[in-house]
Amino acid sequence: MPSIVPNNRLVFNKVPTGYPVPGETTRIDTNEKIDLDAPLNGGVLIKVVVVAIDPYLRGRMRDASIKSYAPPFLLGEPITNFGVGLVIRSENPNFKQGDRVYGTFEFQKYVIKHDTSNLIVLKNEEKLPWTAYLGVCGMPGQTAYIGWKLYAQAKKGETVFVTTAAGPVGSNVVQIAKSEGLKVIASAGSDEKVEFIKSLGADVVFNYKKKDTLEALKELGHGIDIYWDHVGGKMLEDALSAMNDFGRIVVCGAIAGYNNDKPYAISNLHYVLTKRLTMHGFIVLDLLKDHIQEFYSEYPKRITSGQVKHHEQIYKGLEGAEQALLDTLKGDNQGKPVAVLSEEDL
Amino acid sequence: MPSIVPNNRLVFNKVPTGYPVPGETTRIDTNEKIDLDAPLNGGVLIKVVVVAIDPYLRGRMRDASIKSYAPPFLLGEPITNFGVGLVIRSENPNFKQGDRVYGTFEFQKYVIKHDTSNLIVLKNEEKLPWTAYLGVCGMPGQTAYIGWKLYAQAKKGETVFVTTAAGPVGSNVVQIAKSEGLKVIASAGSDEKVEFIKSLGADVVFNYKKKDTLEALKELGHGIDIYWDHVGGKMLEDALSAMNDFGRIVVCGAIAGYNNDKPYAISNLHYVLTKRLTMHGFIVLDLLKDHIQEFYSEYPKRITSGQVKHHEQIYKGLEGAEQALLDTLKGDNQGKPVAVLSEEDL
Repeated sequence: MPSIVPNNRLVFNKVPTGYPVPGETTRIDTNEKIDLDAPLNGGVLIKVVVVAIDPYLRGRMRDASIKSYAPPFLLGEPITNFGVGLVIRSENPNFKQGDRVYGTFEFQKYVIKHDTSNLIVLKNEEKLPWTAYLGVCGMPGQTAYIGWKLYAQAKKGETVFVTTAAGPVGSNVVQIAKSEGLKVIASAGSDEKVEFIKSLGADVVFNYKKKDTLEALKELGHGIDIYWDHVGGKMLEDALSAMNDFGRIVVCGAIAGYNNDKPYAISNLHYVLTKRLTMHGFIVLDLLKDHIQEFYSEYPKRITSGQVKHHEQIYKGLEGAEQALLDTLKGDNQGKPVAVLSEEDL
Repeated sequence: MPSIVPNNRLVFNKVPTGYPVPGETTRIDTNEKIDLDAPLNGGVLIKVVVVAIDPYLRGRMRDASIKSYAPPFLLGEPITNFGVGLVIRSENPNFKQGDRVYGTFEFQKYVIKHDTSNLIVLKNEEKLPWTAYLGVCGMPGQTAYIGWKLYAQAKKGETVFVTTAAGPVGSNVVQIAKSEGLKVIASAGSDEKVEFIKSLGADVVFNYKKKDTLEALKELGHGIDIYWDHVGGKMLEDALSAMNDFGRIVVCGAIAGYNNDKPYAISNLHYVLTKRLTMHGFIVLDLLKDHIQEFYSEYPKRITSGQVKHHEQIYKGLEGAEQALLDTLKGDNQGKPVAVLSEEDL
């Protein structure tokens, strides 16, 4: 086997105005090479096995001068996101050949990591498929579990409303809420997704493309104690209208705003006062240091026991990654999208 | 002294469309009488000495079919609000003649209370003027002290922005924040108010009628960690733009919306997510049960020691009460407005 091999990668090529365009806003660069036998200078050589695709990546595909919570992608540089990799060779005593590691990776065949502060060796005693560490036990599961624990202040018998409930975070929230004895109202954008959410145990599920959200909430005849918001915009406004006094709004996404230049303006924010609401915006990355160990010790066993079901959509290669990003922003995916870059190591 | 005497009162007469109109949306009813010697059936006969005037009263002057956090006033019935009364006669063992009581009173010369659950006998060991129990030690002071304690999560060296900072709540928030070592940015609607707020120790104060709020915040060159919101609407939007990551927004008023049929729509609520903000709406009434004893043991002594300054505007009689309500909604008052109904008992 030659030691110098191609190191194909997915590069950020142009800032999208609306949805990203495969081949235009991103492109596959096949010119890059890597010498697998070269000294690592204390680093770790990792083969990227699978990467996660998340809606928030759209927010990083921006002009680099615009500030936001996640750093912008740089034009000509690879897209990056959470992934699972396989250690090929290591000059760092904390990692050894054959280790599976979770962390942030370039969308590229091989990477060399010197800063290993965000790499975690996955023990996987539960023998979950590695893709699960990007979905139900990855950022989406972490978001649902940690955000719910810290901000929902849920009490048995209360009602929670979850939007994009068929999504990777939403489907976890639905199941966590049911396991704690709440009534779950959920919405999604296709009948197929509606059926999937029902199969997770949600009490009332509707297709927001066929039924107005506010009308659907009103028909239920009672209010919402917790709104788990992935969307923002009009749906947040509708939820504000339907909130009960002392309700909690947990904001972990604003997908409605990701592809729009002109954001929807919310005219009923006074309900925060009159209904004495609490609203928490959070990004799970800020919370991992204090909560990831508890998560890893608690959540994977809910998967193996069958208490938490999950649903993945597997895309193949860098072309798959491009398509997956578009699909997840359009809501065309079913379940957590992941892109497998090395099938033989899955 | 005849036992049957006039019992003049201020009656809710018509739902205002914008600002209330003295003599039209409220009117003084001079036909009511009371027999001061009649049996009380276990009640307490109280002379109303002074009542508070607050912006939230406008919200109660609504069509009774509209739900909101505070009950609507009923047409033909008296306006009510917090006040201090003097017990004239009591058939309830918890109250005796001469007691000063804090609670909710009709805007009326005399009232008979059977439900005494919200009446508190004021010991007033600090010998504060009774009017102080409606302002700096009344609902406004309670709102500032308890809301700050529960929701601001203030750390020394942080920056707080307070709107309507010359108002009864705002002026307390400014002083509490300074006493805890924060930088205080404040705004108000007149140069006179700006000077008053400066005299309370605020670091940067501007007149929002002369200077755009967002521009003023930008000029300061750094963000806000805590926004204390009395206003909502455009000012809340401006504050959202200027918030630092992990900022807290404490919402205890929405005066911008009280007199407008069409509320201002907020287009940057996505900052709640991207800046990981927390927003708390609260009404201090919900919190009194757990926190009023601590408040009464802690706050009055800050007044007598001079640590907290306060400022009242005293209106006289029921006519004064009507005018005070209009002034406070227009922002024409200076300091906490109170209406004295019985000068000889002050």
